[in-house]
Amino acid sequence: MKPLILVSNDDGITSRGIRHLVTVMKQVGDVLVVAPDSPQSGMGHAITVNNVLRLEEVDIFDGVKAYQCSGTPADCVKMARHFVLKGQRQPDVVVSGVNHGSNTSISVLYSGTMSAAIEGAIEGTPAIGFSLCDYRHDADFSHTEDYIKKITQQVLDKGLPKGVALNVNFPAIKSEPIKGIRICRQANAKWVEEFDRRVDPNRKPYFWMTGSFVNFDKGEDNDEWAIANNYTSVVPCQFDLTAHQAIPVLNEDWEILG
Amino acid sequence: MKPLILVSNDDGITSRGIRHLVTVMKQVGDVLVVAPDSPQSGMGHAITVNNVLRLEEVDIFDGVKAYQCSGTPADCVKMARHFVLKGQRQPDVVVSGVNHGSNTSISVLYSGTMSAAIEGAIEGTPAIGFSLCDYRHDADFSHTEDYIKKITQQVLDKGLPKGVALNVNFPAIKSEPIKGIRICRQANAKWVEEFDRRVDPNRKPYFWMTGSFVNFDKGEDNDEWAIANNYTSVVPCQFDLTAHQAIPVLNEDWEILG
Repeated sequence: MKPLILVSNDDGITSRGIRHLVTVMKQVGDVLVVAPDSPQSGMGHAITVNNVLRLEEVDIFDGVKAYQCSGTPADCVKMARHFVLKGQRQPDVVVSGVNHGSNTSISVLYSGTMSAAIEGAIEGTPAIGFSLCDYRHDADFSHTEDYIKKITQQVLDKGLPKGVALNVNFPAIKSEPIKGIRICRQANAKWVEEFDRRVDPNRKPYFWMTGSFVNFDKGEDNDEWAIANNYTSVVPCQFDLTAHQAIPVLNEDWEILG
Repeated sequence: MKPLILVSNDDGITSRGIRHLVTVMKQVGDVLVVAPDSPQSGMGHAITVNNVLRLEEVDIFDGVKAYQCSGTPADCVKMARHFVLKGQRQPDVVVSGVNHGSNTSISVLYSGTMSAAIEGAIEGTPAIGFSLCDYRHDADFSHTEDYIKKITQQVLDKGLPKGVALNVNFPAIKSEPIKGIRICRQANAKWVEEFDRRVDPNRKPYFWMTGSFVNFDKGEDNDEWAIANNYTSVVPCQFDLTAHQAIPVLNEDWEILG
């Protein structure tokens, strides 16, 4: 039996990245798409708790069953599992993307692409978020096809450790082909924001958040290094946020534990 | 010199929880409030990348400098640091809450309250998210006051390990006082969603996400156990999502690393 593959993303169901991903996934298994009806970049692990959700079947993937959802990427995965596929066979893998832009390093926290994947992992399904480190409007996704297929097939064959979702980033296309795959840790880097203040036609101020990315990491075992050196980076991610190493520190240091 | 305390939340700047937190923080140091102008529950670590932000000074905290922001909790902390306090003294601690409802276990991922705290930790500032495990409209916050003060003072005195933010949850008020503080790990639990399908006046379907919380954790060292046993739970949280233990597993298992 062919594997069942749930596809979502955060750039929205009409984006080029999800179209590319659906095309590749059709070569691997049976595909179901549940994706946001509008761009949801930067939505992190948001869910819709104070508003209603809409879900509508659409026919834009040449025979592939697909739904657009008014919610976030995490909502899409929840609705796929607990509404669209309720009482039916559940997906063998959740794939999200291909995001139009990098989700390396700290960006994993802000990434809607990865929240769909992590939601899959929470449900106990192997899951992968794919992102292309190229923000150009006409970014070329073609060089990622073989890697997407190989990585998804590997995950289907071997599974993933419990509670793990993969954060896969591809370098922008270059004259040389991608050198290979590196299993990485999340680089130690952050965004330094600036706020561009403008004035609207009613003379009230508003702001655009902009920022520059600062990499503090000197190592070669992280995703930023891999991308800079033309490798595909694969970071296994977890949803247990506990800083386990800090527990004994606090237990020893704090005087208020009584 | 008194410590400078940045206060934010996700229930919005007019909520009872942030009012309570500001009142307590005024006893500890100088307070600056930058909080969302509308409820942002379930926003996870969302940031505003495709829309503009508004920021407006408001006078609702009896002399405390306060701004309402149209963005998410993470946006608020970013704007506080990189706009309101740009070029000035930065906060000694970021506190967020008090959330009206639990943020234990897996809820930390969906929590706007904790995203404000984690944003503080990313910036290198000790940070604490406070939540009250009581969803009742008229929830009583009074029994949390001493704990909020003690925990904040302890963090100011001792600092926190690098990259750590605290997820603090308080049990709902009971006839017995809270038993004490437990340093915990995040419990292994999840939400099982259901989608309540309704039909709008135009006969189009819409959905409300509802769900029930399922705790798989049998341990006594986790936040769910602490709350159930009338303790204040403190989980040190990190923003490195790498599942470090999975790196050697993938390096050994995968055949496509070549």
